[in-house]
Amino acid sequence: MNTFPPTDFETLDPQDWETMRALMHQMVDDAVGYLANVRDREIWQQMPPEVMASFTGPVPTQPSSAESVYEELQSTVLPYNMGNVHPRFWAWYMGNGTISGVMGDFWASVMNPNVGGGNHAGIEVERQVLNWMKEIMGFPASASGLLVSGGSMANFSALTVARNVKAGYDIRQEGIRPEIAGKMIAYASGEVHSCNQKALELLGLGANSLHKIRVNPDYTINLEALANQIQEDRAKGLLPFCVIGTSGTVNTGAIDDLPALADLCEAENLWFHVDGAIGAVAVLAPNAKASLAGIERADSIAMDLHKWLHMPFEAGCVLIKDASAHKNAFSLIPEYLAKNTRGVASGENWPSEYGLQLSRRFRALKIWMSLKEHGTEKFGRMIARNIEQAQYLGRLIAMEPTLELLAPIGLDIVCFRYNPGGMDLAALNALNKEIKLQLEEQAIAVPGYTTLADAYCIRIAIANHRSTTEDFDVFLEELLRLGKLLNG
Amino acid sequence: MNTFPPTDFETLDPQDWETMRALMHQMVDDAVGYLANVRDREIWQQMPPEVMASFTGPVPTQPSSAESVYEELQSTVLPYNMGNVHPRFWAWYMGNGTISGVMGDFWASVMNPNVGGGNHAGIEVERQVLNWMKEIMGFPASASGLLVSGGSMANFSALTVARNVKAGYDIRQEGIRPEIAGKMIAYASGEVHSCNQKALELLGLGANSLHKIRVNPDYTINLEALANQIQEDRAKGLLPFCVIGTSGTVNTGAIDDLPALADLCEAENLWFHVDGAIGAVAVLAPNAKASLAGIERADSIAMDLHKWLHMPFEAGCVLIKDASAHKNAFSLIPEYLAKNTRGVASGENWPSEYGLQLSRRFRALKIWMSLKEHGTEKFGRMIARNIEQAQYLGRLIAMEPTLELLAPIGLDIVCFRYNPGGMDLAALNALNKEIKLQLEEQAIAVPGYTTLADAYCIRIAIANHRSTTEDFDVFLEELLRLGKLLNG
Repeated sequence: MNTFPPTDFETLDPQDWETMRALMHQMVDDAVGYLANVRDREIWQQMPPEVMASFTGPVPTQPSSAESVYEELQSTVLPYNMGNVHPRFWAWYMGNGTISGVMGDFWASVMNPNVGGGNHAGIEVERQVLNWMKEIMGFPASASGLLVSGGSMANFSALTVARNVKAGYDIRQEGIRPEIAGKMIAYASGEVHSCNQKALELLGLGANSLHKIRVNPDYTINLEALANQIQEDRAKGLLPFCVIGTSGTVNTGAIDDLPALADLCEAENLWFHVDGAIGAVAVLAPNAKASLAGIERADSIAMDLHKWLHMPFEAGCVLIKDASAHKNAFSLIPEYLAKNTRGVASGENWPSEYGLQLSRRFRALKIWMSLKEHGTEKFGRMIARNIEQAQYLGRLIAMEPTLELLAPIGLDIVCFRYNPGGMDLAALNALNKEIKLQLEEQAIAVPGYTTLADAYCIRIAIANHRSTTEDFDVFLEELLRLGKLLNG
Repeated sequence: MNTFPPTDFETLDPQDWETMRALMHQMVDDAVGYLANVRDREIWQQMPPEVMASFTGPVPTQPSSAESVYEELQSTVLPYNMGNVHPRFWAWYMGNGTISGVMGDFWASVMNPNVGGGNHAGIEVERQVLNWMKEIMGFPASASGLLVSGGSMANFSALTVARNVKAGYDIRQEGIRPEIAGKMIAYASGEVHSCNQKALELLGLGANSLHKIRVNPDYTINLEALANQIQEDRAKGLLPFCVIGTSGTVNTGAIDDLPALADLCEAENLWFHVDGAIGAVAVLAPNAKASLAGIERADSIAMDLHKWLHMPFEAGCVLIKDASAHKNAFSLIPEYLAKNTRGVASGENWPSEYGLQLSRRFRALKIWMSLKEHGTEKFGRMIARNIEQAQYLGRLIAMEPTLELLAPIGLDIVCFRYNPGGMDLAALNALNKEIKLQLEEQAIAVPGYTTLADAYCIRIAIANHRSTTEDFDVFLEELLRLGKLLNG
């Protein structure tokens, strides 16, 4: 009866498991070498044109051996990595990853469950991880949450719930009604991350619905300006619905006055969302915990565990205090997703009822394994050390006459420039940009950059569990060398 | 100067790489055993209460050894997997995963780049994979695309572009204006996947904006009803903007008449989106290619490579024919994301400019490695065999008097029930539900289920590269045994 006799039977499994097993062992050895010796490799290098050209061929119709594909990976992909695994990578805001996280991801792919729903271990592991996140953030056990792709999706998800709750009618069914179109307003400081604007655009509220409030000299939101803007907007007939506080702004690591925002939102009946993609997990660090007080009063928090908790990408998380509001925003159960009372399709409150995704990777596993292996106190020490390193770098900058701090140091973010004196803004900007590029091109370090009040800043964001004090010494030595050379 | 002497220096790396290496080798051997012997293990089993209870503890503050965490994984997580790695799992619509995909994910986590943007190999690999997807789907090289979490995000992304293009003004800036609120209408058959409705809800258009059109007896959209509805809606002053065709409906695998929909959309100036999460990749199969003709005329296609291409979760893909419309819907470049002309932050058209996410996992790598290893022809054979298996199952059902096919077989989806005669609908539904549950609980198979015209269907969706003909023989034998037993 079998029309595919076993001898001819073809699957996507290896024809010979032993050959594949040997290759996998080789990969493990290479990966250990790759990470254990990360400091000895170039942090970044430009891909040569001939390698670039290797990525232009048509889709392969015929097979190649797994070994030859791996050889290609080793020659064309591995050497040209982004560099954030390296101890001197401090650009944008990213973690390093860890080998424990790698193996969590490995098992997630081996088991390959769909953690959109059902009755299986993946669901329980994610539930526990979410409970841990609530516990860490001081949220009640009755709150809900979801692991998502990252901070953008976490903020989007929270703002969806905020929009739906504050619209005051069934906006899921009816959409944005004419009488509220262009009127629902969210507030955040001018330093708010752009993904919040993108979320409001996607939600149909438009970029205009985000009223950006000026910041204080420490880059936190100006509370008086915020309160005034809300009153002005109400007077105009607009409908304020949400305040987005930031715990750790992307430019300078500033933390808004969260208790004051919580008070204001309570008084004004506004949804209080905290974008904590950068700083929320710093509640684990003894030297940062106090600065985050009040975050537990938020209606929702966006977190990003692939940043300062160093999970491999992707590992975002959203927490919502009102679990039923969360579910009401996303749950949709057609006939083919109806639940059973027993078996694999049973269980209440499937993760897919709390977010955009239906099929979902088992991203909880690497978090579960990493938190069990390291424990929160160790993660807290890693975070605390990065904060100390930022202060250390700040002291070195203060001691060096040709270096100039351009913003107060927030959490682990230091913005500064090389300024030997006597140069105008344009020349200073060009010089610092060139210094930053040559640091990369000479594979010394990958600093970040931003612009504050038209000044190009070298921006060091130290979410790096591998950085040592000496890394900052080397970095500044080389930066000063390049500064003198380029300005010579 | 180093305040953290190397001897005390703590990171999230293993204290002893050799111990970790040994553990990783053990994991590789266990994973090979897990997948090579998948047929010998229970497809699914209920997690016992005492194991369930193990997931209720507080967040660990103290460390545990990686070995002990792995032991816990082996005892509490691995045995209670969802089951879609198994040859007799045909529920919902999921792939199995592959070991090559696992190792692609492994390297993605080891390298851990952020494929949101920048100048590094991850960007080139994703670009090539997207070019391959365009090539496979018959899209021009000038089209754009993005790898996303899955079908839900792919559909959401495409409908975002459709909304923004067809609004006819800067909807990103202004949001939904009062004059279009409640008026923009999308069309799809009543069999359209619910994630499209969810997308329209999120986009502020509301579930009401989705006009569901009745289907023909073969579950494809009724074209006359669609054309009439569009005219009626225009007469009412509504603003039709989009038709969503489905290539492979979730209930029965039906493929809408895509050329007719393309013609209609051209004539009516509507965006033509195809939800191809299930069926788009079947263009690779010689026995399905013809049924998908016309898909290349779509303005956008949603694909899901963790379904019928068996990539480990997550691997969705969206293709958009008008690349600039795509970029216009998502690109947002604040000062801290400004690009350089050289170095790691250079390059045009970053992936984050084409979607919601900013930080993005290197999900392209597993696809790149798998397509190189297997080639598209082999993937096509795997898909073709599943389609043949569905026909085979259909023939067995037709030959057995107590089995009843409940819908035409579309692609690889078979809906049927056990019907010994003389039972009313409620009793038949209850009986078939019980049969399905006992098949799971006795670890024989995991069939899916749905409801068609109030009839509970056992629904077999064969996106499974490990299923053999014999698996279907065993499945029906056991199903008939249970049917007789339960109805005895």
